[in-house]
Amino acid sequence: MSQPSPSDTPRLVVCAIAGSLRRGSYNRALLRAAQEVAPDSLDIRIFDRLGDVPLYNADVEAEGDPEGVRALKDAIREADALLIATPEYNHSVPGVLKNAIDWASRPPRGSVLAGKPAAILGASPGMTGTARAQSALRQAFVFTQTPAMLQPEFLLGRANEKFDEAGRLTDEGTRTFLKQFLLALEAWTLRLRD
Amino acid sequence: MSQPSPSDTPRLVVCAIAGSLRRGSYNRALLRAAQEVAPDSLDIRIFDRLGDVPLYNADVEAEGDPEGVRALKDAIREADALLIATPEYNHSVPGVLKNAIDWASRPPRGSVLAGKPAAILGASPGMTGTARAQSALRQAFVFTQTPAMLQPEFLLGRANEKFDEAGRLTDEGTRTFLKQFLLALEAWTLRLRD
Amino acid sequence: MSQPSPSDTPRLVVCAIAGSLRRGSYNRALLRAAQEVAPDSLDIRIFDRLGDVPLYNADVEAEGDPEGVRALKDAIREADALLIATPEYNHSVPGVLKNAIDWASRPPRGSVLAGKPAAILGASPGMTGTARAQSALRQAFVFTQTPAMLQPEFLLGRANEKFDEAGRLTDEGTRTFLKQFLLALEAWTLRLRD
Amino acid sequence: MSQPSPSDTPRLVVCAIAGSLRRGSYNRALLRAAQEVAPDSLDIRIFDRLGDVPLYNADVEAEGDPEGVRALKDAIREADALLIATPEYNHSVPGVLKNAIDWASRPPRGSVLAGKPAAILGASPGMTGTARAQSALRQAFVFTQTPAMLQPEFLLGRANEKFDEAGRLTDEGTRTFLKQFLLALEAWTLRLRD
Repeated sequence: MSQPSPSDTPRLVVCAIAGSLRRGSYNRALLRAAQEVAPDSLDIRIFDRLGDVPLYNADVEAEGDPEGVRALKDAIREADALLIATPEYNHSVPGVLKNAIDWASRPPRGSVLAGKPAAILGASPGMTGTARAQSALRQAFVFTQTPAMLQPEFLLGRANEKFDEAGRLTDEGTRTFLKQFLLALEAWTLRLRD
Repeated sequence: MSQPSPSDTPRLVVCAIAGSLRRGSYNRALLRAAQEVAPDSLDIRIFDRLGDVPLYNADVEAEGDPEGVRALKDAIREADALLIATPEYNHSVPGVLKNAIDWASRPPRGSVLAGKPAAILGASPGMTGTARAQSALRQAFVFTQTPAMLQPEFLLGRANEKFDEAGRLTDEGTRTFLKQFLLALEAWTLRLRD
Repeated sequence: MSQPSPSDTPRLVVCAIAGSLRRGSYNRALLRAAQEVAPDSLDIRIFDRLGDVPLYNADVEAEGDPEGVRALKDAIREADALLIATPEYNHSVPGVLKNAIDWASRPPRGSVLAGKPAAILGASPGMTGTARAQSALRQAFVFTQTPAMLQPEFLLGRANEKFDEAGRLTDEGTRTFLKQFLLALEAWTLRLRD
Repeated sequence: MSQPSPSDTPRLVVCAIAGSLRRGSYNRALLRAAQEVAPDSLDIRIFDRLGDVPLYNADVEAEGDPEGVRALKDAIREADALLIATPEYNHSVPGVLKNAIDWASRPPRGSVLAGKPAAILGASPGMTGTARAQSALRQAFVFTQTPAMLQPEFLLGRANEKFDEAGRLTDEGTRTFLKQFLLALEAWTLRLRD
């Protein structure tokens, strides 16, 4: 009789989305760092096709979800939890990210966001670390019924000092906190399970 | 010697934008109603090309504004004031509208939104008349330096009862208030002029 | 051997707080209605001493919580869940209610708000039913780590038409929805238990 | 014929209010610093009696404003502009400050806040410099019709490093920016005058 190996434990799938399309985005880099520091129990899958999600239009939706929207919904549906890394544009969520949420919140087959545990984080060159964008995103998640983890909050200011030129998170304190943050997301996800 | 005719008075140009791409949108219908009830002193020009503004991407921007973005910026630049009719998606501004603001807030030639007097209104089938979307939009306008008129606020709930099937605003009380709202925007615009 | 009677089932204690000191407040009346329609499984206890909670002052706090603050903290600590009925003052939470939250969020013995399941509702004479106040309160509950139920939302507009002169909720549709809302709070509370 | 001396120029009176009752509050210290660096054209008068403003109660109000409320309203009425220094409690405006605004927004003799130019600033030991509290306060000022200056924004993080033990703002960069901020408030106030 052998002990089950750790790999036998079902891993939680986390759908990770960055709210910026810029190749050098700090928030996309933050998700890559999350993959590096994540515990084995989390399978963090970056959904990197926000650019394929067209502007929301109910007339288009009525004819069936475009392919990029189907891909987004599938990625969320298959995940046990969400990890959203948001920049702050104009004191709020980027339109790019909000647009994806607007599509994902819609039928058919119900909203893939409803009941999906989520964690919000963000990085910015400024001091406030996307505080206002995160608050704005939480407000959207009230309507979509997406239970966003309350604490800890992850606001990474002065992001330009925390990554190297290749976009790798080099700040050790941030890496340690990011791991704690992911462990908290795992606990939050398990707590909300039936 | 003749008196100057009313048409000699310079009219204020108002760039009107609805935050929905849906053909039958109440908010687009609201802007058409604004054109109907506006005083002669306001020239309300609907910018109806939000669908041509691509998802914001700083890498794309670095190569020059796409044509749809240039059209948006030109329309705002040439106007004396803004009139934004916003639906409420997921307790906030639609991504479609926020995305347009994200582009418009950017250089070159400064932000066309900075210092531009604005009024926000909105219509929804529900009770709250886009209250939360309007609050969220105001928050973005703090950063873009867009002075949004404070009062009166225009929140049109139960919009489905206020328009006919052709999308014409038929509710007389709403038409009267809409005219007052536009007069207030005119006064706000003139007050903020140097 | 007898079956345990329903009354043997431990009931969930709900600490109910209205954000207004006015005797005829719709929100206090709403909490009384909640007591009337609540299922037997919920013991709704109205904390009606917000007027005894002084203005928050860290210098005063350093000398020990005033009696009204101790009473507030005790009421929250002994409850399994919170039910907060908020008016909307100036597009936000009343200072009276926010002040109570500011005290309750503080040590010693940790914050009594941390981890406490909560539901927010509100009544107002206007159309929006305290939508903006509820959003603002949710933002505070992110920091206090108070998991507020996401849906359903309870926004009672035109409150003046829903209560009789004695302050009794007479609108049957609202009573029915209020009961559903309380059942949802019960489910939310049980779901968040370890 | 003599030139008018500078002292003949009418100075703008600024009513300055800090949202904390704590004696050692950074935000009260910030207002004292504002007095030190202000141009001669501004007469900054600190209203330091927020602790005398009781919890808002419409039943009490109906019997006449308490003395502390009258003092608050008088101080605002006599000023040409407002300067509000707010801490951030639980991601929002302190209840103490919101309570004062709730009173000030009320009749009789109209709201003393309506049309009064204002500037918001804030200091906190953390990184975000009261960003969320300032956003929340701006939302209240929409309803009170208080035109709050949009830019520049003044968010002082790590406040504990910027003041000495006596509560004097010693950080030179912050002092310089504070002066610019006050000049911007002066320009904003003059711009909004009829």
